[in-house]
Amino acid sequence: MSIHAHAHFEEGNLSYVASFRDKGELAIPPAKHLAIVTCMDARIDVVAQLGLKEGDAHIIRNAGGSAKDSIRSLVISQRLLGTREIAVFHHTDCGMLTFTTPQLREKLKASAEADDGEKIADAVDAIQFLEFSDLDKAVKEEVEYVKVHPLILKETEVTGWVYHVESGKVRRVV
Amino acid sequence: MSIHAHAHFEEGNLSYVASFRDKGELAIPPAKHLAIVTCMDARIDVVAQLGLKEGDAHIIRNAGGSAKDSIRSLVISQRLLGTREIAVFHHTDCGMLTFTTPQLREKLKASAEADDGEKIADAVDAIQFLEFSDLDKAVKEEVEYVKVHPLILKETEVTGWVYHVESGKVRRVV
Repeated sequence: MSIHAHAHFEEGNLSYVASFRDKGELAIPPAKHLAIVTCMDARIDVVAQLGLKEGDAHIIRNAGGSAKDSIRSLVISQRLLGTREIAVFHHTDCGMLTFTTPQLREKLKASAEADDGEKIADAVDAIQFLEFSDLDKAVKEEVEYVKVHPLILKETEVTGWVYHVESGKVRRVV
Repeated sequence: MSIHAHAHFEEGNLSYVASFRDKGELAIPPAKHLAIVTCMDARIDVVAQLGLKEGDAHIIRNAGGSAKDSIRSLVISQRLLGTREIAVFHHTDCGMLTFTTPQLREKLKASAEADDGEKIADAVDAIQFLEFSDLDKAVKEEVEYVKVHPLILKETEVTGWVYHVESGKVRRVV
């Protein structure tokens, strides 16, 4: 197993620094007033996949691309940094389609060492893992969740999308 | 203000699709068994900045690059998809250095329309915005938080970094 990936970060950073040019002048607020929510999945490079570039958009990523799990970040994005559009992406072949919260809670509790059992059970039961079973339906529900959330600005334009890992294509759902 | 950025997503996607080649064969589990936590900041393209590529690492992003706000995703990353290394990045000129939770709560409450006031106050008070005032100290605290968290595997290698938006350079903190 290849651990210690961090041992190569500084070396891997050299070519980016060498071609950095004027990116140091980019402002904090996203140029396109856009926040994107998408999955942490390793196959996703949302900026490249949408033809965007550094400076254009806030990119929020977590397991599944959950907007529910992004409200803190979205509020900061809108109120402090001026974004007014939110695009929520889920993707095909997502890990979130493969389990349920009760299953994962059981797995975590079963793996606990005896002296950690109670602490782990409490921590596990406090987490909703936010899995889903129907991709398009989940995207629609996320968009609706954002649209009616009391802390999201009413004038926000919210769209929902699926990224297809098999082809690299994006498809609008809502 | 340029809203409607989503109107250009499909057009922006074309060149990525055209050069997609064999990326459709990539597996779900990250090839480097690595999960990266970093900020949603628009100037960050962590995969390019570390010389990584699609398929290498889970990328978790939120306001500030908070590991505290990433536990759900990190658990799924480790237990279902086999990652065993976590790298936490914060960055210079971060929006999280510019406010405090009480200030942002006041701002949100002040902007509420009369009939939404109570709903907004409750939603606002439920959120810790996780700002910080000392960059390196915040990185160290995040790494420590992850290392001792009961749901993070004990054998996980955890490192902490700062990305410099002025130069494109990464610097290890811990």
